[in-house]
Amino acid sequence: MPKHSSDDTTTIDNGQPGCEIAWTDFAQKARRTPTHSAQAALLRPPGLTLDLSGQRLSPAVLDCARRLLHERDFDTQRERLLHGGEANPTEQRAAWHTALREPAPTAEVMLERQRTNNFVRVADSERRWRNIVHIGIGGSDWGVRLAVSAFGYQGTWRNVRFVANIDGHAMQGGLAGLDPHDTLIVLASKSFTTSETLQNGQRAVEWLRAAGIADPYQHVVAITARPEVAQAWGVPPAHVFKLWDWVGGRFSIWSSVGLTVALAVGTDVVAGMHAGASAMDMHFAQAPLAENAPVQMALAGIINRSVLGYGSLNIAPYDFRLAQLVPYIQQLEMESLGKSVGNDGETLAVATGPAVWGMPGTDAQHTFFQWLHQGSDGAPVDFIVCQEADHGWPEHHRSLLANCLAQREALLQGKDYDTALAECLAEGMPPEQASKLARHRVHPGGRPSSLIVLPRLTPYSLGALLALYEHKVFVQGVVWGINPFDQWGVEYGKVLAKGILRELAGDAAASPASAQAVAPKHDASTAYWVQAFAKSLKGRNGG
Amino acid sequence: MPKHSSDDTTTIDNGQPGCEIAWTDFAQKARRTPTHSAQAALLRPPGLTLDLSGQRLSPAVLDCARRLLHERDFDTQRERLLHGGEANPTEQRAAWHTALREPAPTAEVMLERQRTNNFVRVADSERRWRNIVHIGIGGSDWGVRLAVSAFGYQGTWRNVRFVANIDGHAMQGGLAGLDPHDTLIVLASKSFTTSETLQNGQRAVEWLRAAGIADPYQHVVAITARPEVAQAWGVPPAHVFKLWDWVGGRFSIWSSVGLTVALAVGTDVVAGMHAGASAMDMHFAQAPLAENAPVQMALAGIINRSVLGYGSLNIAPYDFRLAQLVPYIQQLEMESLGKSVGNDGETLAVATGPAVWGMPGTDAQHTFFQWLHQGSDGAPVDFIVCQEADHGWPEHHRSLLANCLAQREALLQGKDYDTALAECLAEGMPPEQASKLARHRVHPGGRPSSLIVLPRLTPYSLGALLALYEHKVFVQGVVWGINPFDQWGVEYGKVLAKGILRELAGDAAASPASAQAVAPKHDASTAYWVQAFAKSLKGRNGG
Repeated sequence: MPKHSSDDTTTIDNGQPGCEIAWTDFAQKARRTPTHSAQAALLRPPGLTLDLSGQRLSPAVLDCARRLLHERDFDTQRERLLHGGEANPTEQRAAWHTALREPAPTAEVMLERQRTNNFVRVADSERRWRNIVHIGIGGSDWGVRLAVSAFGYQGTWRNVRFVANIDGHAMQGGLAGLDPHDTLIVLASKSFTTSETLQNGQRAVEWLRAAGIADPYQHVVAITARPEVAQAWGVPPAHVFKLWDWVGGRFSIWSSVGLTVALAVGTDVVAGMHAGASAMDMHFAQAPLAENAPVQMALAGIINRSVLGYGSLNIAPYDFRLAQLVPYIQQLEMESLGKSVGNDGETLAVATGPAVWGMPGTDAQHTFFQWLHQGSDGAPVDFIVCQEADHGWPEHHRSLLANCLAQREALLQGKDYDTALAECLAEGMPPEQASKLARHRVHPGGRPSSLIVLPRLTPYSLGALLALYEHKVFVQGVVWGINPFDQWGVEYGKVLAKGILRELAGDAAASPASAQAVAPKHDASTAYWVQAFAKSLKGRNGG
Repeated sequence: MPKHSSDDTTTIDNGQPGCEIAWTDFAQKARRTPTHSAQAALLRPPGLTLDLSGQRLSPAVLDCARRLLHERDFDTQRERLLHGGEANPTEQRAAWHTALREPAPTAEVMLERQRTNNFVRVADSERRWRNIVHIGIGGSDWGVRLAVSAFGYQGTWRNVRFVANIDGHAMQGGLAGLDPHDTLIVLASKSFTTSETLQNGQRAVEWLRAAGIADPYQHVVAITARPEVAQAWGVPPAHVFKLWDWVGGRFSIWSSVGLTVALAVGTDVVAGMHAGASAMDMHFAQAPLAENAPVQMALAGIINRSVLGYGSLNIAPYDFRLAQLVPYIQQLEMESLGKSVGNDGETLAVATGPAVWGMPGTDAQHTFFQWLHQGSDGAPVDFIVCQEADHGWPEHHRSLLANCLAQREALLQGKDYDTALAECLAEGMPPEQASKLARHRVHPGGRPSSLIVLPRLTPYSLGALLALYEHKVFVQGVVWGINPFDQWGVEYGKVLAKGILRELAGDAAASPASAQAVAPKHDASTAYWVQAFAKSLKGRNGG
């Protein structure tokens, strides 16, 4: 069952003396801070402006936060992250994605950058690969989709398709209508064991072969931390691009996975994103607390979640091109912070990462803003908007900006009963009806939000934006005392799926004893469906 | 601030004697019911099977629910809904979407069906309109996207684009690469005043005219409850299709809005969806509580939200073709139930509609299932899957089914510390490391879910599925005592946006006094951005 806001006396005990007091002070101060500041609270890291006026971050709260971060040994942990130390203790490795976007990276990183750039240069000069089918899932997918749709929203000269799901309809749709002879398959899998990606890759190879392509693997590129596995699978060595064990899957957009982005919208986009993200890394490393955007954004989120008890966070990009930002941040936040056990192995006393969901505005206004304004709970909103547009219809951009500011203001200020009543009466309603209907027009207000303004949607500003969220998540991990770089919770379902898969294929007896030991006895419903599905699979296709 | 689960003594007071006791009994019984039933709990309404084994719905809970529904006057309210009575009291009108899908509808409904079918027949026979640009937002958009992507996921002979957002990049992307001479613009707006739709429509007309089309309105179709407004806008009478005031925007897929669906994937799809939905209507009207799928699904949701305190509901279609089901249900549920004031005007004591979010599996497993399994809160999940696939790769469908069942089982059964420890030791970990890591591998389990199985993805089963959710939402409205058919909360933001728009255009002084009276004084941050945005808009494009 859900765990909600801590009362002021709840402690986060990470075993360090003093922590409890620092947390309690922080929580108490935040709770007593008004819902929005009297003056605009703007932070100006590279690439964007972050407005936290709609959050409970007074100077007094920041003072408490400074002590809390000190108790959490934040400086040491940040140092460890940014310099390739063991930031991921449960998997005993670094989480050194920042190294991939450095202007002057290590020789091995530089070598892979050059290899991918060369591949793109040759392909472009030959006008080769009119179609790209990018096959990857989760971290090997979202970042690429985001960058391609952000900068290729009007279409690209290469036709780019994405296939992630194991559902065969995804592959069917992904290949439909393409000419195999000018199609490149990009397989992205860090381990090169991801079952979705390898099975879909197999289908793609069969499709190439069926078109009479003698060596289909010449049409395949692999991006992986295990080049030898990809080569054994059939991919020619010159088509295998490396990433590293010290890069978490959800950060792989900064790696050779950017190959698809470069093929679709150019190597400049990749380079620009690197530059923006790297500038944000520097800001995160050096800016004092009072100016540090990721740190303050993290604190606002912790207050909303662990002090005020909001269960979710809404991402509202007021930009059609940033629709894919929603699943990107969803994965980044929820896979990183969807944990309730601390680094010390104890169950945490306060609630950690919220559910993250959202949709571009103004679509979202016609979909669920009703709930944000008048629902029982509401959710904090991250509004994201570009000051300048890249189209020639200023009246549209003006409307977009007006809607973004208006929704934020409505959430913040609300509308009380007297105002609603005056409104109803002004519309000419009879007093009795007006007094009744006015109750339905009240907005409680006081609902928190952040506003992120990009000067324009450039690769640089998008890179900075992604790094802002990454570091925010890291800081929240530090304060909550959890490891944002592992994801143990995704393994169990995979193990159970393997067992059920064998049952559906009719060879349950063939399960290794070790797997049987881990799998629970099916509940009645699962048992029923395993049988029903096995039967229909057999009936239709001979299994 | 969020409002969470009621304790057993919280009452929903809708002013009817006896209600409090019925609610308390229901909540108490539900709380004491195990998280999942010992036997598979299957309901078989038309078009699908609903498995509620993972919800707290024992016969004893259903008994209490029967009394609760009786106290809420459910039978009368259902009757009113299904027979065109005033189901929407705050707007004093019916919510009679069920009338649109009846096999033998009224003459006026039948006439519009025939008119849209004729339009499609003529267009098809002439192989006319290779491109469709469907312009609508919210309810005029999601249902069409859903049906077209469900049945046209491999592409359709007509190239269909959707433009909803006021963001000019949406329109720019929507028109890019199309031949205006064979493009039909479909404008869907119930009121024909929706600013996004009309502005985007204007851009489309300009684009047609710029291509040398003498009478661009011959390329435009309108779907609206106000035909005279559409005609005044320029649309020829023969191109105006009607919907009615008594159809809520979020139910408009059942109206002439289906024209785009028919043009893209055929009139059979529209007819099939109608048949499935209508069969579900009949089931909802007639099936006793013990077999009534929408009623029981509603009760499960009420227990999760108002008794157990879950703040959100996850929609997990294990079907690539149903990706658009997520925003569809999101709108349906959140716009309908995102309210905290009852029909009697009082603020409700318990939490109503949850946040609804989701993503198709298996993508979701690589995005946020970590959070569902091990996050502090978790969320109930609606798993939706098709027993049979429409592709020729049985091993993919087997994997998909196995993953769906496995994730559900993992959420339900969890994994305790001892099992996790045994697992770590079996992997050869030293005992000390194993005992530490095992804590990170524990899954609490006991997390509720529903499973909906469609025999195959047909228009009939999709229609039934949508009607199932519609009626579920209606029942929840009845129990919570709120009106699911209004959406007052979306108006305020629109009013504020108009004011800010005038400021951005530099003519704030021109605001009518009435608008100024309603708009609050800007907070400091809004004031700052209004000024900053006005400046950059002026600088760039002369406003």
